[in-house]
Parts: sequence; structure tokens; C-alpha cells
Amino acid sequence: MRSVTAETITEAFLGYFGDEVNPRTHQLMERLAHHVHEFAKEVELTHDEWRACIEFLTEVGNITTAERNEFVLLSDVLGLSSLVDMIHSDPHGTSSSVLGPFHISNPPRLPYGGDLKRDNDGELVLVQGRVVGPAGEPISGAELDIWQTATNGMYSSQDDAQDTFNFHGLMTTDESGRYAFTTVKPVPYTVPTDGPVGRILDATGRHPWRPSHLHVIARAQGFRTLVTEIFPDDDPYLDQDTVFGVRSDLVMRYQARAAAEFPDGMVLSGQVETAFEQVDFDLRLVAD
Amino acid sequence: MRSVTAETITEAFLGYFGDEVNPRTHQLMERLAHHVHEFAKEVELTHDEWRACIEFLTEVGNITTAERNEFVLLSDVLGLSSLVDMIHSDPHGTSSSVLGPFHISNPPRLPYGGDLKRDNDGELVLVQGRVVGPAGEPISGAELDIWQTATNGMYSSQDDAQDTFNFHGLMTTDESGRYAFTTVKPVPYTVPTDGPVGRILDATGRHPWRPSHLHVIARAQGFRTLVTEIFPDDDPYLDQDTVFGVRSDLVMRYQARAAAEFPDGMVLSGQVETAFEQVDFDLRLVAD
Repeated sequence: MRSVTAETITEAFLGYFGDEVNPRTHQLMERLAHHVHEFAKEVELTHDEWRACIEFLTEVGNITTAERNEFVLLSDVLGLSSLVDMIHSDPHGTSSSVLGPFHISNPPRLPYGGDLKRDNDGELVLVQGRVVGPAGEPISGAELDIWQTATNGMYSSQDDAQDTFNFHGLMTTDESGRYAFTTVKPVPYTVPTDGPVGRILDATGRHPWRPSHLHVIARAQGFRTLVTEIFPDDDPYLDQDTVFGVRSDLVMRYQARAAAEFPDGMVLSGQVETAFEQVDFDLRLVAD
Repeated sequence: MRSVTAETITEAFLGYFGDEVNPRTHQLMERLAHHVHEFAKEVELTHDEWRACIEFLTEVGNITTAERNEFVLLSDVLGLSSLVDMIHSDPHGTSSSVLGPFHISNPPRLPYGGDLKRDNDGELVLVQGRVVGPAGEPISGAELDIWQTATNGMYSSQDDAQDTFNFHGLMTTDESGRYAFTTVKPVPYTVPTDGPVGRILDATGRHPWRPSHLHVIARAQGFRTLVTEIFPDDDPYLDQDTVFGVRSDLVMRYQARAAAEFPDGMVLSGQVETAFEQVDFDLRLVAD
């Protein structure tokens, strides 16, 4: 293999491997080299373009901190993060979708019917539904970890004006597998565009918007943990989520309700004097 | 495109593009997304593996400085850097090969027959040859920018004990297109293995060695600049250069010569009292 050529380089790469390589590592590296080499050959990558790639990745590295990982954003806008979700999403359960960087540990407990909105302004929304198993059987004691943006489009960790736990809460389903809480409508927001990944969006004429959504992690003993998002069906960015998170089974409908229709048994019970919107959304888990 | 799936994500990615995308950017991004998506699907990349990739790239970013770019090293050990050289190497000229990170600006001029070795110890080597055009015609006034490791395996920029310009020199071919200089044998050396890229070599059972080589950049008016390396045919790593730089037309032969055979017209003329080795190597340039 003295004279490696464009035709033999992938084979040469594998030929350099030792005998005792972990089979999964072997597979990952072989496929990685194959695709990297094919890409370069198909586009006849120039030296200037190669240098631009190196400079781009160097910039991505420079802007990355513990709080902001631009490599994750790069993976997000290329669709890789969502593709990994899709590959491992069980078709018998609710689709999984982007975890994102805004989940926090130890959110405050919300009782059944609790208020995630607290003292925030915004249009009142009642979100309710059940957590069920593969056959539709209710799962009582399932834990729902819920978070969303405030009405300014920012998560608490992005916004000094918000309390750490603003719009973060942990709810347990009741004996019928039901959950219910009040909140305000989340809003669409943009991914960060001031770093090198923003230049990819610019160069390809893409917008940086994500449709509004509720984040949920659903955990229950004996079931696979579900990390997902729920999107309203009237969001303008539903058909073009810049991180590819939308699945048809994750779309919810806001239903207009009169104040008098507000149910009993909620924390806000009796205080509600305005029309509100209601979302009914069931989460289906699959066995672990 | 509300429900993006593993089957439709590459199409969705392209569907997000604006109308006015530069055609080359479009091609590069389309092929990049295709290969990233195919890789993830073929290997069914897990969330844990995805996280390991993000952490790996974050580490590559963290260790990268102006002096040491670990992304370049990653590209080197994956064969991408050499593949770009291969793709743009003209088959009618001498093959191009890795520039590497050790080239420096404004090296000192060496006269024809000059001594690159200066006060360094090591086995004496006489390197000589011609710079020619596509039909073998000599190119006079061609500039050769030459650099190599000292006998400790380090370039001057890696080694505080060496003068900045140690083993760096700039020579111009004479009216017959000839060049000649004396030096010592370069030695094999390893790429840096203390960073995250070293873990790829470890995980795949690869050694970090490069065969010994002379670096040359050949420039001449009207010809394409050639960036290349010349490798001795007796190097133990010739068949497994960890950065894939070896091409069969870049292999030189050290020929043993008695002291008395040392030619006249060299800087060292008359001083040579030891046997030496001789390398004859022509560089063929192609029209610009």
C-alpha cells in the first residue's frame, strides 16, 4: 500500500487497523471514513474549501463553552440530532424529539392540576391527558418532567429576569394515568445565530426559527423513558422547524374554551374568569 | 413536511433552503447532509454514541490553539487531508503531498550546492536533481522551499533547542534547472498522541508514526505550485504512513557513496572526508 490513491484510501485506512479492534468501533470508523472519503471525492473538495472547513470547526470549538455547545447546534441544524431520535424512536409509542440544552435538574413538584404559569402573564392554557402503555393501559405514578419558554421566547436559564425554575415542573400521573396543569402558550424562538452555525443558515437561506413547543420527559418503571416535545398545530414554523423536531403524532390542538368550562380540581379552580385554551395530549410509552 | 422521518430528512433538509443559494454551497451542503444522514442510519448511531461524538469534538476544540490544530490532525489521520491532495494532484506532474503544520515563512536562502545541515550532527546526505516541466524541459529560476526534522525527530518550531531556521532553506534552480544541497537524513516521527485524536489511533490499534521525509514546495512562473514530500525507500513506516502521505513517485533512494565521490561546486566541497549518501530526485511541474 505504498502508493495510496483516491481509489484505495478507504481500504488503506482499514488496513492500518490493529487486529483487536472492538467490532462496534471498527464499524463506526469504517463507515465514517467511507462517508468522509466519498464526500471529498464526489464534491472534489478543494484545498481552500478544506481550509474553510478547518477554520469553521476551529471557530465552533472556540465559541463552545459548558453553557453553549455549538457542535450540538451544528448537529441540530444538520438534522443529525433529530435523526438519532428518529432512529431510536419506537413506532409503537409516542415519537421522541429533541431534548435540547434547556432541561434542568430537580425541577419543583407540581401537584395534579398544578399551575406551571404561576405569576407569569400570557394566555391561559390547560394541558391534560394520560400516560399510557402500548395497549392503551393507563400508567399511574408516571413522572412527567415539563419545561417551556416564557412568553419572551426565553428559557429560564437564558434569562436573568426569570427564576431558575420558571416554567419547569415535575408532575406524577394519578391512579388513572392522568395529568393536568395550567400554563401559558409557549412561543416560537430562534436558535443562536451569532456563531459560526448561524453562517450555515445564512449561506443556505434558512431561517433560525423553532415552532413553539412544550418539552416533556416521561418516566415510568418498566417503560422506556420518552424524551419528546409537543407542538401546537397553528404554529407558523410547524412545517419548517430549523432543528427538524416535528413529528405528526406530536402535534396538539389548542381548543378554545369559555371561562365557565374550566374544570374543577385544578390549582387555579374558581379563580379563572377568562376564556382559555385546552390541549388534550396522551403520551404512549413502550416497554423497556 | 410536518412529519420528518429518517427516510425524508435529507429531502426536508434541502427543502429548507432558500432560492438564492450559491450553487457550490448547495452542492457541498447537500452532499454533506446526505453522508451525515446515511452514516447515522447505517450504523444506527445511538444517543450515547452521539454524545460521545459531541464530547470528542468539544475536546478537539479545547486543545486546538494557533500553534496546534487538532482538527487538522483529525483530518490527517482520517486520510481526508491526503485525499484532498490526491484529488487535486495532476497525474502529469510529481504527486503532491501533505503540507503539514511546520512550514515557516521567509526561510534563509541557500546557494546552489548549499548546506542545510550547517552545524547539526548526523549522516551526510547529498540531495540533487532537476525541476522540469511537463515535457521534461528544465525550469531555471524555480524556487524550492525545503524543510525537514532534525535528527531528534523535531522541527525547529517544536524544539526550543533549535534555531528558528534550522533545517529550513530556500534554493533557486540554476540555468539547467538543477538544484543540489547537503543535509542529514530526516527521521521518522510520531504525530501528537496526547490529545483526543490519539484516542482514535489507540481505539483502532494504529501507530502514530510518519516515515521520514523532506518537505518541498516548488514554485515557478507559469507552473502550478507543487507542495510535496520525498520519502526514502528504506523507511520502516513507508507502507503505513499514519497520515497517508506516501505516493510511489515520491520515494527516493539513498545511494551509498565514498568520500572521494563527493562532487565539486558544493559549499562543503573539499571538507568531506566521510562516506555519504546521495539522493537524485527530479520534480516535475505542470502548467498553471
